[in-house]
Amino acid sequence: MTIERFQRLIRDIYFKKDSRRGIDGTFRWFCEETGELARALRKGDKAQMEEEFADVLAWLASLAEQKGISLEHAAETKYAKGCPKCLKTPCSCEERLPTGCRK
Amino acid sequence: MTIERFQRLIRDIYFKKDSRRGIDGTFRWFCEETGELARALRKGDKAQMEEEFADVLAWLASLAEQKGISLEHAAETKYAKGCPKCLKTPCSCEERLPTGCRK
Repeated sequence: MTIERFQRLIRDIYFKKDSRRGIDGTFRWFCEETGELARALRKGDKAQMEEEFADVLAWLASLAEQKGISLEHAAETKYAKGCPKCLKTPCSCEERLPTGCRK
Repeated sequence: MTIERFQRLIRDIYFKKDSRRGIDGTFRWFCEETGELARALRKGDKAQMEEEFADVLAWLASLAEQKGISLEHAAETKYAKGCPKCLKTPCSCEERLPTGCRK
């Protein structure tokens, strides 16, 4: 399933409710699901982790949709050519760059 | 781009670094990027929002990869048939269900 297709799927299921709630309310839900993902990662149950990963992705898609942003376009633009800093795959950035790169 | 392809892309760029950092360190980075997304949403600059959406998605993919989970499989399993609670598209769940459903 493409990222774009998933975003459309979530839009079709939830856009009316999500847009009524607005960005702030939707972001709060996104954070709640992020907390649930943190817990699932700690506990390590695979089915629960899968549920929470799906939920975080769904809320991220909903936020993007409300702002008129394509997650797929954003993801491709930033990462399709490798690390956005060193432009290599795998990333060869120094480990201790002061800011902006993955330490 | 499929969700799976994006996850593989991020794995190819970052898996070595990310797995050395571990789940806790990677989750902290995910949270940092979530904070940057919050700020970008508030400021409303489209290019900045796109960057931050891409980053949050990338860190989510990295977390999933480290746990051996396919984001695409998780997303399809949970949402391909519509709302996981009412099984409808659009979701027709009551707005004030006590828990577990999108209010």
